Amino acid sequence: MRCKVCRGHAVVDIRRHNAAFCPDHFVDHVTSQVAKALKEFKMATVEDRLLIAVSGGKDSLAVWDVLMNLGYDTTAFYLDLGIGGYSARSKEAAVAFAGSRGGKLITRSLREEHGFTVPELSTLTRRVPCSGCGLNKRYEFNRAALEEGFDVLVTGHNLDDEVATLFGNVLGWNTQMLGRQRPVLQERIVGAGDSRAFVKKIKPLVRIAERETAAYALIRGIDYIVEECPMVEGNTQHRYKEALTLLEEASPGTKHRMYFGFLKNASDRFAEDRGSAELIPCTDCGAPTVASGAHGVEKLMCSFCKTKALAHARRAERTNDSVHGAEQR
Amino acid sequence: MRCKVCRGHAVVDIRRHNAAFCPDHFVDHVTSQVAKALKEFKMATVEDRLLIAVSGGKDSLAVWDVLMNLGYDTTAFYLDLGIGGYSARSKEAAVAFAGSRGGKLITRSLREEHGFTVPELSTLTRRVPCSGCGLNKRYEFNRAALEEGFDVLVTGHNLDDEVATLFGNVLGWNTQMLGRQRPVLQERIVGAGDSRAFVKKIKPLVRIAERETAAYALIRGIDYIVEECPMVEGNTQHRYKEALTLLEEASPGTKHRMYFGFLKNASDRFAEDRGSAELIPCTDCGAPTVASGAHGVEKLMCSFCKTKALAHARRAERTNDSVHGAEQR
Repeated sequence: MRCKVCRGHAVVDIRRHNAAFCPDHFVDHVTSQVAKALKEFKMATVEDRLLIAVSGGKDSLAVWDVLMNLGYDTTAFYLDLGIGGYSARSKEAAVAFAGSRGGKLITRSLREEHGFTVPELSTLTRRVPCSGCGLNKRYEFNRAALEEGFDVLVTGHNLDDEVATLFGNVLGWNTQMLGRQRPVLQERIVGAGDSRAFVKKIKPLVRIAERETAAYALIRGIDYIVEECPMVEGNTQHRYKEALTLLEEASPGTKHRMYFGFLKNASDRFAEDRGSAELIPCTDCGAPTVASGAHGVEKLMCSFCKTKALAHARRAERTNDSVHGAEQR
Repeated sequence: MRCKVCRGHAVVDIRRHNAAFCPDHFVDHVTSQVAKALKEFKMATVEDRLLIAVSGGKDSLAVWDVLMNLGYDTTAFYLDLGIGGYSARSKEAAVAFAGSRGGKLITRSLREEHGFTVPELSTLTRRVPCSGCGLNKRYEFNRAALEEGFDVLVTGHNLDDEVATLFGNVLGWNTQMLGRQRPVLQERIVGAGDSRAFVKKIKPLVRIAERETAAYALIRGIDYIVEECPMVEGNTQHRYKEALTLLEEASPGTKHRMYFGFLKNASDRFAEDRGSAELIPCTDCGAPTVASGAHGVEKLMCSFCKTKALAHARRAERTNDSVHGAEQR
């Protein structure tokens, strides 16, 4: 197997591109694919201040690495979700990488900010951990970006992630999610004001497959956390990836074709479902929430605050129960 | 496992309906699901003359059986594709079933009608057999229905077939095919005339899964051909079914949800791609072909006649080559 560029010994082959690369030219390839996505979808300019949501995994550290190399103004943000040793080790990986590259890193902890971890939230609200985790991350990433004055929030979603999400959305024909599934989500403003409600969000790795970010991290010596989140078992996204990988193996390029075919031929058919409802500030935290469909004051709290309130109420009930239980004994 | 209706011994369970049935109530269940599809999608009335395209397989014989039991005016049509012993045995199954039920059956042979079999056509045109086979069947089914004065053409496509086709269409975001993927295709007229170009086509088994038509055929004593077409190997549709079955097993109802969710939430988004281009008669056979996009006279031949002309031209070349070869020897 020879490198497509220099004919040297290739270490990575990419069947959907019908190409193989030596380590150096593979890094060039990934970098140019990211640059292509940034340009094609008008993701960001070098003047923008980018906040990269990093988990300590291969994708988010790789996208940070590539963006630094491309000369973007980057700062990373790590949110400690409190998932035991997994969170501790993933934080270490993010901190170590930032240190090795002299990158700026902001860290926050869900427990310190809001009083619960992802496992605690799941138990208290009786919801699957992934749902609460996603809600927390979306909320905290956006809040951090706005509070710290960043222009763009970057996530490490790769091609496999995006096509699996797309597959999930077409399995149920969730038209709102289909409308929103773009590599760029533009910033949105609260009400008639001039303050930003949602920061612009971009996914520069949409042209890179999962095994390619892993190879990139390996070649670049990025010491990422390999273990998967212990709470992810039975995650439907994993099954979608499995099913799509069956097809990709038989016909390389299937995933790319599905994702980019959607963006080209179908995404706009769901534009009206994207949600352009007016945003109003949450009565509790001031974060944006959708004004329409509100049934009285309670509904004007954002989803995050409603979930947080539920969790704290359930915790208070438990404390009361155990106090009463102790009194009766 | 107990029958949902009579609590007797159940022989078939349907996880997506969370129900099991004894043989008699399973037959009732399938019949009522077909009746529901016929009504919901306004497929046909008992006044319509239905032509059922039968292959000798479980689906087409099952749909014929159900429609006869529901009191519809049915005639079956068997097209001999000339695929060796497979075609011979599938024809036997169709003829035997028609005989056992006193059903009317029309048979035609591709070789007698047009001078080639599916394997010969594939060799001559250097195209995959499934593509030529589909083209031939669509053409011959429609022609037979129009020539014999039928109102509706019925095919045995089941839920698994339809959802696999849908999956293939969203993998490539083929918007024309997405627009056309309905359980009913209305009849179409040639030009300004009043003669039908395409007969109305319906798929009454869209609510029935593949394993359910197999169980239905078994219970009803329908002696269908079990073997698969020997030319189908590597067929992409099979891979799509495999991938979807992975998901169905983990989450029963996934296929139903994907197909009916599409019809409800998304199909109309592709309505404009359905193709409403004016139809004109093929210069060769008179069958309808799309007028737009024509580049001179050659293009006014329909796809079937173009393929047929190519096959006959290639055959003539070969005959000439072998004559010349013989002369040179």
